Amino acid sequence: MADPIIQRLEAVIAERRSASPDSSYVARLCARGRSRIAQKIGEEAVETVIAAIQGDAKGVVSESADLLFHLLVLFADMGLTWDQVLAELDAREGTSGIAEKLSRPKE
Amino acid sequence: MADPIIQRLEAVIAERRSASPDSSYVARLCARGRSRIAQKIGEEAVETVIAAIQGDAKGVVSESADLLFHLLVLFADMGLTWDQVLAELDAREGTSGIAEKLSRPKE
Amino acid sequence: MADPIIQRLEAVIAERRSASPDSSYVARLCARGRSRIAQKIGEEAVETVIAAIQGDAKGVVSESADLLFHLLVLFADMGLTWDQVLAELDAREGTSGIAEKLSRPKE
Amino acid sequence: MADPIIQRLEAVIAERRSASPDSSYVARLCARGRSRIAQKIGEEAVETVIAAIQGDAKGVVSESADLLFHLLVLFADMGLTWDQVLAELDAREGTSGIAEKLSRPKE
Repeated sequence: MADPIIQRLEAVIAERRSASPDSSYVARLCARGRSRIAQKIGEEAVETVIAAIQGDAKGVVSESADLLFHLLVLFADMGLTWDQVLAELDAREGTSGIAEKLSRPKE
Repeated sequence: MADPIIQRLEAVIAERRSASPDSSYVARLCARGRSRIAQKIGEEAVETVIAAIQGDAKGVVSESADLLFHLLVLFADMGLTWDQVLAELDAREGTSGIAEKLSRPKE
Repeated sequence: MADPIIQRLEAVIAERRSASPDSSYVARLCARGRSRIAQKIGEEAVETVIAAIQGDAKGVVSESADLLFHLLVLFADMGLTWDQVLAELDAREGTSGIAEKLSRPKE
Repeated sequence: MADPIIQRLEAVIAERRSASPDSSYVARLCARGRSRIAQKIGEEAVETVIAAIQGDAKGVVSESADLLFHLLVLFADMGLTWDQVLAELDAREGTSGIAEKLSRPKE
């Protein structure tokens, strides 16, 4: 179960998606289409990477929050919930230990 | 408070970081340094973006799980916790409504 | 007109695309489909970004070479040529000065 | 030797870097520092990836032009030239065939 903060965010995003683009960032973003949402995810990830390399802890937290927020917007746009990500991580761990399960051949 | 699955993952990652690189993906990744961890975040974000554009819901969940996992490895490497991301999102919402707070001039 | 090194590379890539995946990296990459080529572009760009932030000049040159190479593979896969990128840059400059032309509202 | 269009672009960028940030996009970008230039490279690469997955040939050319432009700004910022990228690609080809040389273990 996603924690209460994530759940509240998902509810806010769901509500704002149908708001007027003039009044809401989420509505504006969704109105521009899924490729724009995906683009924002790419951008926030790059900013997280840069903050990490700079050793900027405050920046990593802030950019990760931006990244998580835009992932939640994408999930809403695709009819998905964050619980599905947690369930996926839980299932991997259940099988064989999450860390080792992720030790995929592609690395 | 991060949910139990995230908390357990953080504990597993903390433990694996000091394991032998031969036996653990997390140990191997951390041994290669922060730039390698950051690189993985960039890679998983790109895969999430591609799955989103392809309309591949299963892929979006799976790549987002990979992305979240590697973010948690970065957080461990920088002495941060996922709770700090949730607190940041909560604080933004507290001020003026999360969605509108994120309506930054840079967009 | 793209310079001779780029032209030679385009010719090599065109030839290798139809080679056996066992014998050629380009053939292997193209066999995995356009999304895999696009993924590599994302990865090499992230590596370029990291080298830039680290102030690693040698790394920036090397990762930019990887990035350009994979862009050329994408161009081959889409029936495009690098000359079209140069023509686009030339046309922008022709209009109003390249640097200012790129001063788009989105920034 | 980089082709004449790239050479002219490099000259324009070199000149604009010292212009007033009010009058020039390049000056404004450089004034914000290398991390901002690197960020733009990440963003343009993501847009190229999205256009590729969408099969948008015109978009791929346009976003690749943006990407190349920002790479040239980074190169100027680091005292590098595009010729060094071409020399690197040429050297790889000289050794053992560019495509196979790039067949790195990491793939």
